[in-house]
Amino acid sequence: MAVEASITKLTTSDHASVVSMNLFVALLCACIIIGHLLEEYRWINESITALVIGLCTGIFILFTTGGKSSHLLVFSEDLFFIYLLPPIIFNAGFQVKKKHFFRNFMTIMLFGAVGTLISFGIISLGAIHFFPKLDIGSLKIGDYLAIGAIFSATDSVCTLQVLNQDETPLLYSLVFGEGVVNDATSVVLLKAIQNFDLSHIDLITGFHLIGNFFYLFTASTLLGVLAGLLSAFIIKTLYFGRHSTDREVALMILMAYLSYMLAELFNLSAILTVFFCGIVMSHYTWHNVTESSRVTTKHAFATLSFIAEIFIFLYVGMDALDIEKWRFARQSPGKSAGISSLLLALIMVGRAAFVFPLSFLANLPKKSQSEKIEIKQQVTIWWAGLMRGAVSMALAYNQFTRLGHTKLRENAIMITSTITVILFSTVVFGLMTKPLVRLLLPISKHKGIIASPPGTPKPFMQPLLEDGQESEGNDGTRNAHRPSSLRLLLSLPTRSVHHYWRKFDDAVMRPVFGGRGFVPFVPGSPLEQSVHQWQ
Amino acid sequence: MAVEASITKLTTSDHASVVSMNLFVALLCACIIIGHLLEEYRWINESITALVIGLCTGIFILFTTGGKSSHLLVFSEDLFFIYLLPPIIFNAGFQVKKKHFFRNFMTIMLFGAVGTLISFGIISLGAIHFFPKLDIGSLKIGDYLAIGAIFSATDSVCTLQVLNQDETPLLYSLVFGEGVVNDATSVVLLKAIQNFDLSHIDLITGFHLIGNFFYLFTASTLLGVLAGLLSAFIIKTLYFGRHSTDREVALMILMAYLSYMLAELFNLSAILTVFFCGIVMSHYTWHNVTESSRVTTKHAFATLSFIAEIFIFLYVGMDALDIEKWRFARQSPGKSAGISSLLLALIMVGRAAFVFPLSFLANLPKKSQSEKIEIKQQVTIWWAGLMRGAVSMALAYNQFTRLGHTKLRENAIMITSTITVILFSTVVFGLMTKPLVRLLLPISKHKGIIASPPGTPKPFMQPLLEDGQESEGNDGTRNAHRPSSLRLLLSLPTRSVHHYWRKFDDAVMRPVFGGRGFVPFVPGSPLEQSVHQWQ
Repeated sequence: MAVEASITKLTTSDHASVVSMNLFVALLCACIIIGHLLEEYRWINESITALVIGLCTGIFILFTTGGKSSHLLVFSEDLFFIYLLPPIIFNAGFQVKKKHFFRNFMTIMLFGAVGTLISFGIISLGAIHFFPKLDIGSLKIGDYLAIGAIFSATDSVCTLQVLNQDETPLLYSLVFGEGVVNDATSVVLLKAIQNFDLSHIDLITGFHLIGNFFYLFTASTLLGVLAGLLSAFIIKTLYFGRHSTDREVALMILMAYLSYMLAELFNLSAILTVFFCGIVMSHYTWHNVTESSRVTTKHAFATLSFIAEIFIFLYVGMDALDIEKWRFARQSPGKSAGISSLLLALIMVGRAAFVFPLSFLANLPKKSQSEKIEIKQQVTIWWAGLMRGAVSMALAYNQFTRLGHTKLRENAIMITSTITVILFSTVVFGLMTKPLVRLLLPISKHKGIIASPPGTPKPFMQPLLEDGQESEGNDGTRNAHRPSSLRLLLSLPTRSVHHYWRKFDDAVMRPVFGGRGFVPFVPGSPLEQSVHQWQ
Repeated sequence: MAVEASITKLTTSDHASVVSMNLFVALLCACIIIGHLLEEYRWINESITALVIGLCTGIFILFTTGGKSSHLLVFSEDLFFIYLLPPIIFNAGFQVKKKHFFRNFMTIMLFGAVGTLISFGIISLGAIHFFPKLDIGSLKIGDYLAIGAIFSATDSVCTLQVLNQDETPLLYSLVFGEGVVNDATSVVLLKAIQNFDLSHIDLITGFHLIGNFFYLFTASTLLGVLAGLLSAFIIKTLYFGRHSTDREVALMILMAYLSYMLAELFNLSAILTVFFCGIVMSHYTWHNVTESSRVTTKHAFATLSFIAEIFIFLYVGMDALDIEKWRFARQSPGKSAGISSLLLALIMVGRAAFVFPLSFLANLPKKSQSEKIEIKQQVTIWWAGLMRGAVSMALAYNQFTRLGHTKLRENAIMITSTITVILFSTVVFGLMTKPLVRLLLPISKHKGIIASPPGTPKPFMQPLLEDGQESEGNDGTRNAHRPSSLRLLLSLPTRSVHHYWRKFDDAVMRPVFGGRGFVPFVPGSPLEQSVHQWQ
């Protein structure tokens, strides 16, 4: 994404914008408080709260300004991509339960990368086929592909808040992992599409596109891993822990942000880079710092991510009523509604088209029934990815408002359709999630409410946090009941890659970069005991 | 300060600015690492490191761009006042050792407020008297007063890093407290000056000016206190602790920032507001949150402040070589040097003019020799306030580049003089601080190095942190050896106000707003034990 002037609109000199900022910060506080009060009703989460508060504020502003404007700040996709998205994605990587993530790595990649590509293909083809019949203007082939990428970016927040990770760990890690990989895939896809002149598409362009996609994917991942390892090495070598918690925390934040900006510099996918930087940092760097630094980074990153998420939803809610955007839509309400419904249908079909076949594939090497993804779980996974959120919004802005084409009729219609799809899917699908999950997975009906510890944080991406670092050490004991050779062969991609990785990690990586159990012991620092205390 | 478009220059669309941001973030990392490595040589601190690295980078850029530009980012006083200063000042309030601060409250206010006013008066009068002889253009009376305010803002970072708070607690709290109050006073002063038409000054304008100053001071303080109390009340009432650390931390950050923005909205001194908000938050709110939230807020706020400080010094170093600004100065190098030397002399005289008389005043009610400020300590206090830093820079930008008058010769000269004074005082005075303090306070010669615990954080404002909250409880035992009635009367403003405040606090405030010992006990949360552990 291009780094463009962004905060400008956030802080302009006049008195009005100080009022706006005050109102906005106050609304953020209100969202947190109201979201907290409504926590009992667990299907109303912070996302929906923020969306609804945003909508109400939008209506209020619309009336007080006499219908001129509905929002306090002008949404900028750069504000989103430079300031709001990095903390969310970094935190997702930092807090991911690595054991679950890497154990189900193949399945997650299958759903997150291959699945998103299938969904992208179906939505794009559907758009190419049906949109011309609705006569909404001259969209190019690049626009159709972009629509595919935009509406492949899922938002699984609602589902994650309902699922219980202790009861359905497999399902939970699949939905969470897919959500993260899916975000990155959509962004990389759109980037790849925008890098190419797609006016006349042929086989060679197609291959280039795919090559570009894989190049972006691997290069971005590598950069993130390198940045994470560098931070681990620096902190381990200099052992900041003896000196200053603040220096360590500052260095971690700055190195993570540096990896993001470096990816921007090299035109890679910054979102993937910072995600893997987060994973590596939590695996190595996090173990090299002082106890206070661990607690601080864990919660500070989660808090930043939390604020960013609320910010986005609040904004999307407010922005939904922007008069300017609805000008064209009002002229042809039928068409707008048609496009939105069509998109929603394509999203549902596109997701069904990969969840069920890929689940079948993923089940093939698994012999025990408990490891397989049951049909009910498949439906849950399907449902979990029907919501669309902030990433879709930002990508839509990126595609349809760049190069100054905001005023084009077809672009305006695409923006309003995106808003409609996001609002409808988040509110309607979101509200239906809890009843549906309870119906499909009745086991969690009672335990789900009691078992969820009230003391743990519940915001968004965070729930995978708790024993992310704790549960790795006992890998050896788990491998004791290893599968038979045939099953080993079939499940090789996941299990044994993981096994050899662990060996390599212990023998080569950890002695160099630190990590659990490889940190020099400092007398007086309650190292081991505290790891448990804070998890 | 006006909230103006600020980050624009930080993130502009072209490739060059992505390169700039990368370089800048990388330099920040370098400053932290080098500052850490140089920590042994304690008189070279992060400020000087950042300044020098900034200067070197500036020279490097100057050569590579062929003398066109020396900095990566365009300094904006709004970037400073909206994003960099709030965390620094809030953290100062949040981490202040409240016992020491309030025990020496009167002396601190004497130095910080009255002293700054005296210094302001002397520098202003000196400027009015001497500047016209140097013939640097048509400065107005408002400009002269502004110069007084700008060069009254001290930067006691270097001294604080050398002083040892365990050996000289009185001296330490005086230097630290004065530093904070002094910043706020200078900002409020400049604001008051800018609010008035000073073309023809008379007695009534003078009284208005003073009235405005006191109005800004009290109103800003009140707003900060109210915001802090509100946050304490919300968190105590809803008891977020049972639910989410992230929500609590997010709410504290947002409420603090809201207080800052509200002060901007009402045209108050946001810097004072956020300082007192920090104090109240650490006194009440901090005790109402979970253990993890405490550790997180403590270190997260310190880290933010730390990054902001390095950012500022790095920038000032880089900005010092800006060719554009030196254009006028080069035409008349003698005049520039004259003004800078004159300002440095005025700073030294202006500070001497209040430190020694006010110390005498502060010593009057004290009978015991150990409570008095000795002459050597007075010299240390005098020296501690000779450095000028980021606040002066930002105020100078505010006064001399606003309203588009950047190109005026006299304004350009004032900016370059400010840079010269800051560089000279920070580097030369800064480097001399350690030898001087060691000479004046030989007691700390050996213990100073050994006693400083290597595990504690050393950055900037932070050292007052450690037992800020811990040491309040034993107030009663201290009051046991209370002074005689005469001495009580003389020391009444400090001691007994403090005593009655503690009674009022325990009886009225804490039951409502929470605070140490007034938080509902949550089974399973290691509340008391951990307070000590983390301090």
